Amino acid sequence: MSLEQKLAAFLAPDQLLTSREAMRPYECDALSAYHQVPRVVVVPNTREQVERIVRTCAEFGVPLVTRGAGTGLSGGALPLAEGCLMSLARFNRILDIDPANRTATVEPGVRNLAISEAVAPHGLYYAPDPSSQIACSIGGNVAENSGGVHCLKYGLTVHNVLEVKVITIDGEWLTLGGRALDAPGLDLLAVMHGSEGLLGVIMEVTVKLLPQPDLARVVLAAFDGVGAAGEAVAAIIGAGIVPAGLEMMDRLAIEVAEAYCGAGYPLDCAAILLCEVDGNEAEVAAQIDEVRALVTASGAREVRVSNSEAERLTFWAGRKAAFPALGRVAPDYFCMDGTIPRRHLAQVLERIAALSSEYGLPVANVFHAGDGNLHPLIAFDANSDDELARAERLGSAILQLCVEVGGTVTGEHGVGVEKLNEMCLQFTPATLEQFHALKQAFDPHGLLNPGKAVPTLNRCAEFGAMHVHRGQLPHPELERF
Amino acid sequence: MSLEQKLAAFLAPDQLLTSREAMRPYECDALSAYHQVPRVVVVPNTREQVERIVRTCAEFGVPLVTRGAGTGLSGGALPLAEGCLMSLARFNRILDIDPANRTATVEPGVRNLAISEAVAPHGLYYAPDPSSQIACSIGGNVAENSGGVHCLKYGLTVHNVLEVKVITIDGEWLTLGGRALDAPGLDLLAVMHGSEGLLGVIMEVTVKLLPQPDLARVVLAAFDGVGAAGEAVAAIIGAGIVPAGLEMMDRLAIEVAEAYCGAGYPLDCAAILLCEVDGNEAEVAAQIDEVRALVTASGAREVRVSNSEAERLTFWAGRKAAFPALGRVAPDYFCMDGTIPRRHLAQVLERIAALSSEYGLPVANVFHAGDGNLHPLIAFDANSDDELARAERLGSAILQLCVEVGGTVTGEHGVGVEKLNEMCLQFTPATLEQFHALKQAFDPHGLLNPGKAVPTLNRCAEFGAMHVHRGQLPHPELERF
Repeated sequence: MSLEQKLAAFLAPDQLLTSREAMRPYECDALSAYHQVPRVVVVPNTREQVERIVRTCAEFGVPLVTRGAGTGLSGGALPLAEGCLMSLARFNRILDIDPANRTATVEPGVRNLAISEAVAPHGLYYAPDPSSQIACSIGGNVAENSGGVHCLKYGLTVHNVLEVKVITIDGEWLTLGGRALDAPGLDLLAVMHGSEGLLGVIMEVTVKLLPQPDLARVVLAAFDGVGAAGEAVAAIIGAGIVPAGLEMMDRLAIEVAEAYCGAGYPLDCAAILLCEVDGNEAEVAAQIDEVRALVTASGAREVRVSNSEAERLTFWAGRKAAFPALGRVAPDYFCMDGTIPRRHLAQVLERIAALSSEYGLPVANVFHAGDGNLHPLIAFDANSDDELARAERLGSAILQLCVEVGGTVTGEHGVGVEKLNEMCLQFTPATLEQFHALKQAFDPHGLLNPGKAVPTLNRCAEFGAMHVHRGQLPHPELERF
Repeated sequence: MSLEQKLAAFLAPDQLLTSREAMRPYECDALSAYHQVPRVVVVPNTREQVERIVRTCAEFGVPLVTRGAGTGLSGGALPLAEGCLMSLARFNRILDIDPANRTATVEPGVRNLAISEAVAPHGLYYAPDPSSQIACSIGGNVAENSGGVHCLKYGLTVHNVLEVKVITIDGEWLTLGGRALDAPGLDLLAVMHGSEGLLGVIMEVTVKLLPQPDLARVVLAAFDGVGAAGEAVAAIIGAGIVPAGLEMMDRLAIEVAEAYCGAGYPLDCAAILLCEVDGNEAEVAAQIDEVRALVTASGAREVRVSNSEAERLTFWAGRKAAFPALGRVAPDYFCMDGTIPRRHLAQVLERIAALSSEYGLPVANVFHAGDGNLHPLIAFDANSDDELARAERLGSAILQLCVEVGGTVTGEHGVGVEKLNEMCLQFTPATLEQFHALKQAFDPHGLLNPGKAVPTLNRCAEFGAMHVHRGQLPHPELERF
């Protein structure tokens, strides 16, 4: 009996897709440069079906890739030609809302924003807000440990999830974490976050809810240099202020965003900072004054403060439009995602500018400055000679730069298939081996999303790039940890 | 060549203890009911010595127990008769303080409080504050994922550590986590927290530092019933206030504490709440008013607010003295440590009272109410007939109660050897197996602190107690998740 026959025994025809046409919508996630039609697509709608799908794949030794909303930017949900692609889109029910303990328990296919909408009547919301929050699902958020503008104050997904229920490759159920403080035993809950589908199938998520703040206000500050803007970021964080969001845009990002949506940003500056604070009247008023003073002291040439919710949204409009805006002026662009320790912001931005002219490709910077999470946008034209290849090399050079100053090759987009090579720069062989050993402890036969997230030592050898050792720094001018 | 001879080749005489007398000080941690003199005690003072000790133990197949300050309350550092006990007490240097990124990098033997003292000149501090913070070491804090009064607002150790350097059982170095946001790869940093020495030897810890708040004030509220006090806790959290500490004491705890240190607590009440808020003038003033209103609305019969730092410390004096105070009125006591979802506070306290009279032993409750982290103190007399055994049974019954309402058998004291049986109540066999698989991924031969933290399925079978299934509730009157 074939895999397909076995699956057909407990899946309805509309839950088991085998024709190329029917499977086409599942061939890629949001990193559409990579696409692959799988052997079969399954769309279960009961827990028992998922258990049986997992057991069946294990029985036939067929790799299983689980997919949420498919909004991932690193190819984590890319199907395998010989594999089974399982969509959890039909698990979209909110199972429980507990205002007293400020928790909500939901199925993995529930959209990030749908949680906040469902708990709004209780004056609560779910804090992590990836820019895809209208579409992305909470199961995918856990798998990628998603961030967002508000993670500076409220943490990543891992800091806002209390419990997950997981189906292992054996079809066993595990309950990881719990609704009470600090579950004993080894921290398998944290391990599931950012595990990109390598360890198990996330079937239920209990999230922490926060009370909606009374109000939020934004300070917009314009600077003549990215250096000064970087100092302002350090000054704000150093003063102990924890903004709800602290975003930076450089000149190119400002220009394209302004041309696209006319948010009214100053065009005669090198960088702007958007600093949002939230809380009650008293806190916000006090913090706005402090932020205003700090950015001014850091040399801001212009400082504006939102005085209404409408104005606050206008301040954010350009920031939120920056990606599509660049899409309009450049035929193609890569959205990179790396992190650096905050204090290196200025020197890294200057270095990126140098790399940009070196490679002859414009780079716009729009990023979570408070977190040191960069999103350089590399503009290129895939149709003109070697620009795609050059853009990829430039992107890799930027990520190597992040590692060199003590940062990481991904902040919130995951590794997927996109950044396997850069993982070789980030980690020593010993650490990569430990990752594989942990993977094996969950999935001995390597059937869950194989080939993603953690490169083999072989691949690192082929890639040729060695782990960046503290001692060997291609750019000695960069201060190091 | 024997293990001892091999160790003597690279350790000075004062670093290699083999006589009973010399090893006696290492026979137990703070859970002194359990004690065992090991085969050998080693006290390395260089990284190379630690690598060689680990490799030597691996070579001889001798189990290795690593010890920090020995302040643990669950026997996690209890030596093994046939094993090697390694003290990291001499690794007590602060390696780096980075005010710009608000981090400090320290060796594992550095005392928790010593970090805050060292960074105080920069206006910074390290937030997690176990009550043993004067003596306990940061390496032990990571191994047990320690908490403290301020963890309600600032999180457990795992939320305040950015990077650890670990020596594996192979003598390999792993760098887990990083100074930048969200390191990619599987979250081995979180796994090390609370791993109780099972996975590796923690050799370096980089902690997150916070700016010292401008000021802190405490509200002391007295209630006629624990129910009302529990409601006040729910009201404060529900209002979105995040106190720096939110502690509760019941009548017996108040009486003994007052008799011991005369903090001036009201004696005619059933429970008091201590709610501390910190931040800048404006925030604190606003939150104090809110807290005052909420506790009053919850039926507080008396409300006091600290108006000076001296008064704030007086308010805390009784709380901090509660444990030694009970020690003075009762020959012996157990300090239990369980967590529950906050909303079950009142019913669980009533149930503990019932168990207390059922077992004929007084129980004083002093705990982190905001976290739902209970510390019932069971008073007994080890010399009178069966009281020790009864106290142990009562303690176990209280922990089972915690699990039944969706809580855990330990909040911040760890499992060690003390709570192996209760782990069988907490977790399913599948989850326990997953813990063992993870342990194996780090330590295939089970040489690192074997027999601690995670019980074998055998032991659970012998213990006879099954995992508490949602369906089978000994106490149907308890509301369940």
